[in-house]
Amino acid sequence: MAPQVVIIMGSKGDLSHAQSVVKTLKALEISYEMRVCSAHKATSRLLEILKEYEQHAGPLVYITIAGRSNALSAVIDANTRYPTIACPPYSDRFGGMDLLSSLRLPSGIASPTILEPEGAALLAAKVLALSDNNLRQRVETYKQRFLSELAAADQEVQQA
Amino acid sequence: MAPQVVIIMGSKGDLSHAQSVVKTLKALEISYEMRVCSAHKATSRLLEILKEYEQHAGPLVYITIAGRSNALSAVIDANTRYPTIACPPYSDRFGGMDLLSSLRLPSGIASPTILEPEGAALLAAKVLALSDNNLRQRVETYKQRFLSELAAADQEVQQA
Amino acid sequence: MAPQVVIIMGSKGDLSHAQSVVKTLKALEISYEMRVCSAHKATSRLLEILKEYEQHAGPLVYITIAGRSNALSAVIDANTRYPTIACPPYSDRFGGMDLLSSLRLPSGIASPTILEPEGAALLAAKVLALSDNNLRQRVETYKQRFLSELAAADQEVQQA
Amino acid sequence: MAPQVVIIMGSKGDLSHAQSVVKTLKALEISYEMRVCSAHKATSRLLEILKEYEQHAGPLVYITIAGRSNALSAVIDANTRYPTIACPPYSDRFGGMDLLSSLRLPSGIASPTILEPEGAALLAAKVLALSDNNLRQRVETYKQRFLSELAAADQEVQQA
Amino acid sequence: MAPQVVIIMGSKGDLSHAQSVVKTLKALEISYEMRVCSAHKATSRLLEILKEYEQHAGPLVYITIAGRSNALSAVIDANTRYPTIACPPYSDRFGGMDLLSSLRLPSGIASPTILEPEGAALLAAKVLALSDNNLRQRVETYKQRFLSELAAADQEVQQA
Amino acid sequence: MAPQVVIIMGSKGDLSHAQSVVKTLKALEISYEMRVCSAHKATSRLLEILKEYEQHAGPLVYITIAGRSNALSAVIDANTRYPTIACPPYSDRFGGMDLLSSLRLPSGIASPTILEPEGAALLAAKVLALSDNNLRQRVETYKQRFLSELAAADQEVQQA
Amino acid sequence: MAPQVVIIMGSKGDLSHAQSVVKTLKALEISYEMRVCSAHKATSRLLEILKEYEQHAGPLVYITIAGRSNALSAVIDANTRYPTIACPPYSDRFGGMDLLSSLRLPSGIASPTILEPEGAALLAAKVLALSDNNLRQRVETYKQRFLSELAAADQEVQQA
Amino acid sequence: MAPQVVIIMGSKGDLSHAQSVVKTLKALEISYEMRVCSAHKATSRLLEILKEYEQHAGPLVYITIAGRSNALSAVIDANTRYPTIACPPYSDRFGGMDLLSSLRLPSGIASPTILEPEGAALLAAKVLALSDNNLRQRVETYKQRFLSELAAADQEVQQA
Repeated sequence: MAPQVVIIMGSKGDLSHAQSVVKTLKALEISYEMRVCSAHKATSRLLEILKEYEQHAGPLVYITIAGRSNALSAVIDANTRYPTIACPPYSDRFGGMDLLSSLRLPSGIASPTILEPEGAALLAAKVLALSDNNLRQRVETYKQRFLSELAAADQEVQQA
Repeated sequence: MAPQVVIIMGSKGDLSHAQSVVKTLKALEISYEMRVCSAHKATSRLLEILKEYEQHAGPLVYITIAGRSNALSAVIDANTRYPTIACPPYSDRFGGMDLLSSLRLPSGIASPTILEPEGAALLAAKVLALSDNNLRQRVETYKQRFLSELAAADQEVQQA
Repeated sequence: MAPQVVIIMGSKGDLSHAQSVVKTLKALEISYEMRVCSAHKATSRLLEILKEYEQHAGPLVYITIAGRSNALSAVIDANTRYPTIACPPYSDRFGGMDLLSSLRLPSGIASPTILEPEGAALLAAKVLALSDNNLRQRVETYKQRFLSELAAADQEVQQA
Repeated sequence: MAPQVVIIMGSKGDLSHAQSVVKTLKALEISYEMRVCSAHKATSRLLEILKEYEQHAGPLVYITIAGRSNALSAVIDANTRYPTIACPPYSDRFGGMDLLSSLRLPSGIASPTILEPEGAALLAAKVLALSDNNLRQRVETYKQRFLSELAAADQEVQQA
Repeated sequence: MAPQVVIIMGSKGDLSHAQSVVKTLKALEISYEMRVCSAHKATSRLLEILKEYEQHAGPLVYITIAGRSNALSAVIDANTRYPTIACPPYSDRFGGMDLLSSLRLPSGIASPTILEPEGAALLAAKVLALSDNNLRQRVETYKQRFLSELAAADQEVQQA
Repeated sequence: MAPQVVIIMGSKGDLSHAQSVVKTLKALEISYEMRVCSAHKATSRLLEILKEYEQHAGPLVYITIAGRSNALSAVIDANTRYPTIACPPYSDRFGGMDLLSSLRLPSGIASPTILEPEGAALLAAKVLALSDNNLRQRVETYKQRFLSELAAADQEVQQA
Repeated sequence: MAPQVVIIMGSKGDLSHAQSVVKTLKALEISYEMRVCSAHKATSRLLEILKEYEQHAGPLVYITIAGRSNALSAVIDANTRYPTIACPPYSDRFGGMDLLSSLRLPSGIASPTILEPEGAALLAAKVLALSDNNLRQRVETYKQRFLSELAAADQEVQQA
Repeated sequence: MAPQVVIIMGSKGDLSHAQSVVKTLKALEISYEMRVCSAHKATSRLLEILKEYEQHAGPLVYITIAGRSNALSAVIDANTRYPTIACPPYSDRFGGMDLLSSLRLPSGIASPTILEPEGAALLAAKVLALSDNNLRQRVETYKQRFLSELAAADQEVQQA
């Protein structure tokens, strides 16, 4: 099945973070591919990978996963017509402020940042659901779960 | 024309930031509406506004603009089926760390953050362009401008 | 017994922090209830819970416990006539700066922030004691303990 | 009229911040007094001032205003039976992190922190209103204004 | 022997930090006393302790050890004629910025801050040595050790 | 004259910062060229520019000037055999922490960071002087000036 | 008159900060000298200046004034027998965190940090007063002023 | 063999960080020496060590390794004609902001900062390779490895 989401990691070290995204994509029955490429060290190769997907048949969303100084999101965003979502893994070095490398974008760059892998997958789902009513339904079902979990927890603590 | 983007501000004080978003939306010929509501002070009213749009005919993207502690993005995101983009205005108080109120989302929330109003508008455009080939073309044209501007600047500084 | 303090958590994960508040409330013989609700994911339900308590017979104080981006305190404060105290649990991510989501309130919001659960309970006690002389006496007794503990410690280290 | 709120500043330089609190207290018809004393430089004098108020006839709330390293709130809180609210003025030095001197309290201290002077006054009002139905009504009226202002702004930007 | 240094802790929890100071004081043969008192919770008692020492026979230096919001150093400094050195223990909460409560002093306060307990003891020693030639000699001897340790390490790594 | 230093800016907005580098390069009689290109928006063009210089006759040093999220330094460093020095302009947004995008490099990247334009030029000079004795002499002369300026200032303040 | 305090600046740009220290030294009738030297750029010269003072007749205190990365305080402290006080000028770059270069000292360094020039001068005074009863009296008189100023301000705001 | 790189540590505690630099230097067949000296505590000795190397036969690069307040890099840079690279070890105290002591250099200092030991070694290699074609070839080979590792990882995750 053609992927609806392509997850690109900056290094294989980001795989577990990518797999957290995948977990929610699977729950929502969204097809995906995972790739590894570095915007710094393999710049030309990255541009080639993007070209592979550019003539993709249907809607596509990129989710990028790159820690430390994140160039991956913005380089991809500028070189593709598809929405690109940055989901950088947290590092506790320097108070987590690596985050700013994902956020402090130059003019003309459109890649937003979301920290939680589940949130990145849900965002991709909501974007794709704009033209996919079945997926829209699955997203609604996924979100209903939160309400029932909260109601159950409310019951539980009242009796604690 | 039915809006493709609804910009919701937390207060009228955010209007100039919203107008920066509008400038790019207009350049890309995307229809929009602006609204003001507070997730804190007018919670019920906000839920009503969201209901107004929920049965909207075509694709819709929310862009939220709320400074200080930003509850608006996440409350909207959880209460709508449409993608919701946080574009919080910068404050220099506390080193700009109000930003974290947009980013440190609980489980199940999908609103990403992007700082530049032009970027927020471009992201909405790229999302809407997934099912709109004419818009896709306008986005491409918009982005070509960056290349020619950079080439001109490169010429200029070589002669400086 | 009708509660004098209602502790509302944003998720069941905040239960141990709530129980630290409860420990001091119990020491001061203050009645309480615990609830779980999310201002983001269950906004309507939260407004219903607040309505349950609005016609409460006597004085009431809310203590809210919500980590990450804390919308709970300010949404509750704006939608109730009772004092609302934010007691957000600490997270070491981003240097603890989630804190600002509790503090950087928009105009018209009155929920203050206190970090220690014991302090939140003591504050509720001092507020309720304004019209309850018995509780006032229990607070004084509770505070006397600090002086004797400090005097004992002073003795001890002089002999160390 | 006996004061319902006593505002204590750490130095005369905090007067304009205190006057912002006063503005809201006046709007809510709450009686108040302003005082200046330093917990550091005039420790004994501060304890005397607190004693003056300790046998006060009715409910009383302290609002403390001290910048830089704020010892005033916690010293007052520990030495009075009345609720004590810290409302420290913002300084842009060190990213505003003087704030932590108000928040990082030792065990047994109950003074919460709120940044906006209007919020500090509103909190005092909500505390006093627990045993004052007239004040409770004035607070409700004060808060209704926010809803109508937001509705007006919403109208206005839709036509912008 | 009359103490040359009085170490005052804000709580018994600071004892191990105080003992690190003591270790260097002992190495330099400086007499000392340890005390525990809180500037917040036992303000009057603190002023009494300071009076005990005010008529002290010879030179005296205070070293204060108080974590979180440090009021102890500045309250002591303002209420004594003796030099007062703040040596606050590090906490990793909020990026260690509790530190600012020791540094952001109001006008007229003279308590400096030094982080390492060894440094605080050495500073007290250098101050006392201004009028004590024997101590001056012991400080010199103590510092010579650093040069020989560095020379030995330099030898060692050249052969690594 | 073939350039010894190539200054690459991320946008024309960085020109004044580049000219501060140029001022010191001129004082040291080092030949240079200025270029503008974006690693994000003109990735392919950047790779072409680097290829232009790759077969350069003599030693060459890149100085990169890119604010916000700096991808330029690391992308250049990974795609050239020449030393690449990041000299990012300061922004006061977010406490200047954009800086980390220059510093938090992935494995295998060698671009160091220096904040002052004079320092970046001096570093390039010291690197080039390793194989250029005339330049080495000019650097020594340049540095002698600091000693005489400091001696003059020392004289001056002693008489102030 | 032989100086009791030597103020060493890292550059002539620190003169106004030094003059704030001098203002309080003059008020306390303490003799002083001002010097300029850089620990980085004129390391040997700095060691010579320190030798000039090492055989000084009476007690002496150094106050060092160096912004950005402050090496001056610790290099002086390690190379002198006199107490050395760091009084670094504030810079708003990087949230003022240059401060840490004064505070994060290696083992064996005893230079403490105090931010306010008045505080640095007062500290030097309290140190020198340990063996100078006349100065001790002048310090007491200087501090009495704070009490009367606070009492006057307290009167004034009560009538505001 | 005469060293091409001299690594100077501020204390023996920095040895493991130095050895990470050495690992890459060895992989690139670059000769090196390790030294230990403190700019603070052994200032004169440091100047002597620098003099030892000043008349060195060929190109030389210093790599300095000093944590906390790093004076070592800038003192060395100002007192040598050779390029000096700061590679300070990370400390999690104060959000890692010791880093600024390496970066906030006064005028006329040219020591840049790079965090990763591998990067520091690679930078030294690229500098030395400007006049050493064999080394240039070894650097190219070293960097080729990154491309093949990334390609292999890309294959692997596509099949995950």
